[in-house]
Parts: sequence; structure tokens; C-alpha cells
Amino acid sequence: MAAATPFIWPVRVYWEDTDAGGIVFYANYLKFFERARTEWLRSLGLGQQALRERTGGMFVVTDTHLQYRSPARLDDLLHISATVTELGRASITLKQEARMYDAGCAENAHGTLLCEGTIRIGWVLEDSLKPQRLPPDIALALQPQVPPHT
Amino acid sequence: MAAATPFIWPVRVYWEDTDAGGIVFYANYLKFFERARTEWLRSLGLGQQALRERTGGMFVVTDTHLQYRSPARLDDLLHISATVTELGRASITLKQEARMYDAGCAENAHGTLLCEGTIRIGWVLEDSLKPQRLPPDIALALQPQVPPHT
Amino acid sequence: MAAATPFIWPVRVYWEDTDAGGIVFYANYLKFFERARTEWLRSLGLGQQALRERTGGMFVVTDTHLQYRSPARLDDLLHISATVTELGRASITLKQEARMYDAGCAENAHGTLLCEGTIRIGWVLEDSLKPQRLPPDIALALQPQVPPHT
Amino acid sequence: MAAATPFIWPVRVYWEDTDAGGIVFYANYLKFFERARTEWLRSLGLGQQALRERTGGMFVVTDTHLQYRSPARLDDLLHISATVTELGRASITLKQEARMYDAGCAENAHGTLLCEGTIRIGWVLEDSLKPQRLPPDIALALQPQVPPHT
Repeated sequence: MAAATPFIWPVRVYWEDTDAGGIVFYANYLKFFERARTEWLRSLGLGQQALRERTGGMFVVTDTHLQYRSPARLDDLLHISATVTELGRASITLKQEARMYDAGCAENAHGTLLCEGTIRIGWVLEDSLKPQRLPPDIALALQPQVPPHT
Repeated sequence: MAAATPFIWPVRVYWEDTDAGGIVFYANYLKFFERARTEWLRSLGLGQQALRERTGGMFVVTDTHLQYRSPARLDDLLHISATVTELGRASITLKQEARMYDAGCAENAHGTLLCEGTIRIGWVLEDSLKPQRLPPDIALALQPQVPPHT
Repeated sequence: MAAATPFIWPVRVYWEDTDAGGIVFYANYLKFFERARTEWLRSLGLGQQALRERTGGMFVVTDTHLQYRSPARLDDLLHISATVTELGRASITLKQEARMYDAGCAENAHGTLLCEGTIRIGWVLEDSLKPQRLPPDIALALQPQVPPHT
Repeated sequence: MAAATPFIWPVRVYWEDTDAGGIVFYANYLKFFERARTEWLRSLGLGQQALRERTGGMFVVTDTHLQYRSPARLDDLLHISATVTELGRASITLKQEARMYDAGCAENAHGTLLCEGTIRIGWVLEDSLKPQRLPPDIALALQPQVPPHT
């Protein structure tokens, strides 16, 4: 059985994303990764504002590990992936990557890896911020995203 | 003769854009407006990184006046407009708006105005940051964007 | 009677504040100005989180007009001022400036003006975000800050 | 021989730092940690803008691993530490923490741990962004910061 195809979300680099080194400020990859996670959840019918209003719970980020491989610059178009690696009772772990592709460059078919990382998000009650088991319908929507042998 | 149709760019509200008031942090409308200006320039063949490499010049923001009308929240989809109101020798002035539309709501055909403002950008030399006349080809590309009687 | 002495708050420029132009990203002056307003309010006994918990209201920014005069760079130390120019029933208007000083430079006694602007903040109910008259004790604490003939 | 005392830098939480969950947006801890590293380097005579102008090199972040333990809110005063754990030929690894202290609370003498992490920064040439051995005078200034048995 094949692994789940990663969800991909395009992100364009604007002035706001860069720093005086002339490259994307490293903290902003956390923002890019979150945009991709948000759109991935939305694609599964899990809009976060709606979830929050319906359940009184929300996802919070509990662990981030990022490695920076190659810099991106103003106007670059990045492709951000999100792939579930683990679905726990109260948390989800994802592998995420930022890649850039050169149009028409056969040697660069997989793109250039800019940044990769592991992000864990936990489900908490909105008021107390206490960890909580994932609501059954959310767990159910996420289940097919989990790779088979993990 | 009709005024130029405004350029519109969609912007989704993510966690990064909000603050503890539960709404979009006001400074971020400057980012949203810039994304729309950047894509508007790109649509005219004026990618800013390419401009900079070719001419040694770049646009800098010299004046911003924003008025906040109505708040936006997580997951809202905003439409950001950019319309030239004045093309000077060394600067461009734009009127920009952020609006939100309710799907299928006839009374809300023009959307809800969230934020509107005037932004002036000037052309400067990259090294000295000194104001400089707009390069002729840039002025030429921008000319058709200027409304007729302004 | 003399005008109120402006409140001054120091802000250091870090990598996070800069952009690929090598200078402070213009939207960040709104953040710097807000830090100074927050500390100015705190100096008057008006901590915003405490205000919110006590009154159910909060300040929101309703109008910002900024003019950019001179760029700042990484490691620069800025001095941000905040001076009330108008105290309304439900809003406060402030004049704010960002300046930089050269140590031991007599010609530069007033510093270099980097950015100046006018900011209006309004008092709203936290839940509805509807404008509301300033609570009497807040108005009372602010009154001595207002210049005499404005 | 005692381990090096950690460098501590205070950071106040402003509106800009929070998100709609009512807490500090997790990506911003990377900014807080960097402010503390920058001030730690400055305390050793290593101002980054001056370093860059003098050597043509700069530090870039190559690896970040953050764990989020407890949330912080608007107006909270955080204490950010920075302690070298490893000094390589072309990189420095630091352990960093964000803590919050309750005034006059004996049980909370070590504060509440909000976020902790490991950050690796590498020295690169400014133009090529290629890794480069740390200049001897920088390595010399950093040497006394390294704990004895690491």
C-alpha cells in the first residue's frame, strides 16, 4: 500500500518574509509550514475557526524541529508539503518541507530542499489550554492521512 | 472613459495574522496591501527582484495612511485591491482596500470594507536609498494604469 | 503652561525587524510605536491586560498615518516617542516619532527623524468590538497627558 | 569548575506577539531567543552589524528545535536565557529557555518554563552564504563561554 501523497501548498516570498541578509528570515518557515497545515486541514473539512466554534477546542503547536538547508529570496515561489507521520490520541505529528523548483530543469525534478522539519500539534480546550483527546470526528477525518506502517 | 479596474488579490487569514483581541493585527494590513501591490506589479511584468537586479533600484514605501473599518478573523478570505491614483516622476500613489464577501448574500454585493488606505511608494537606488526618477520602461508599463483625469 | 514632555521608549533593531533592502521593514514601525504606547499606558498605571480583565474593554487602533523619512538598520537603537494630541470621549490621538541619535555629535542633538506619524486608538467592548466611551478612571488618568490648548 | 552562568535578556509580550488563541504565537519564541542571542553576542563585543562590515561574514540559523511547555500572554515579562553548549569550527550550539517569574512566590523560585530549545548558528560569507570557519577573534571571544566538559 502506497504512502499518502503529501499535501502541497504554494507560498510566494514577499518583502515581509525577508531579512537584511537578503534571504527569508528563518522564523518565517514556521509560518509557511502552518499555512500549509491549515490548508491541508481545510481540505479535509477541518477549518480551524469552525472547529473551534463547534467543539471549544483548538490545535496548538507543541514541538517544532526545523533544519535550514538552502536560502530562499524575494519573489521565489516555494512549495510547502505536509505529511502526517503519526496520529496520537491528542496530537498529530507531521513532516514538512519547503522546496523550490526551477522551471524546465530536468536535473532539478525534485526541487531544491530549503527547509525541512517535524511539527507536533496537540488538541487543547480553548479556555484552559489543557490537552484533550481529539474529538472522534476529527480523528476519523485524519485517519486516512496516516501512512500504513507507522 | 472608465477608470481602471482595480487589481484584486485574495489573502487568507492565518493564525500568524491574528492577535489576542481575536482579530487581524492592524499592522498586518500593510503586509496584505504589499502582497497585492507586488502581484499587481508582477502582472505588469515588473517583478521586483528582477527589477532590482536589472536596474539597481527598488521601490520603498514612503507614506502609509490606513483606516480600520471592521475586523477580520481567523480563516476569513480577504480581497485586497490596488488602484493607482497618481504616477509621479519618482513615486506612485495607490488607493488600497481590504474587503470581505459573504457568499450568496445579495445585500453584500460590494462586500464589507475592513480597511482602506493610501500608500505612496518611491523609487530609490538600492545602495544609497536616494530617490531617483522612475526608469522609462517602468514608467511606461505603469502609465496605462493611471486613471485618466487625476 | 508647557506642553507635556513626550514619553520615550528605546527599541533595538534585530534581524526580525529588517528586510532584504537591508533596512527596517516599514510595517514594523507600527509595532515599535505600539510598544511605546503600551509602555506609556503602563507608566500611567494602565496595563492593557489588567484593564481588559477589569473592564471588559480594550483599545484598538482605528487610524494610522506614517511617513518614512530615513532608514534604520540592524543593531540601530531607536527612540520612540508618544505624545497625546487629542483625548476624545471614546478615542485618543497620539503623535509618535522614531529617532536615532549619534553619540557625541553636537549637530545631531535632536537626532535623525526616521519615521513620524499619527495614531488614533479607540476604546471598544472586548466581545462586540463596538466603540464605547472611555471608562472614567482611564479618562482621568489620561487627562494630565493632554496638551493644554488642543 | 562551574558551568557558565546563562545570559538572561528580558522580553515583554506586546499585542504583536500574540495570536487569536490569546497566547504568544509560537513562532515568536524564535524571535525572542534571537534577541537574547544578539544581546549576548553584543555583551561579548560581537555586534553583528559591525562584525559583518568588518569581516564580510555573518551568523545564520541552521537548526532550531523548540518545545512549548506553557503559554504566555499579553503584558507578561519573560526572561530569555542563552547558554553555549558547543563551539564548533564554523558553528555555535546554544540551549535557550523562556521563563516567567511570579513576584514574591517562593515555590516559583525557578520560574515557569514556557519554551525551551536548542539553536545552532553557523558562520557564513555574506555574499555566497557558504559556511566558513569562525574568524579567530570571534572564536577567542566565545571560548570562555563554553562549558568545561562539553
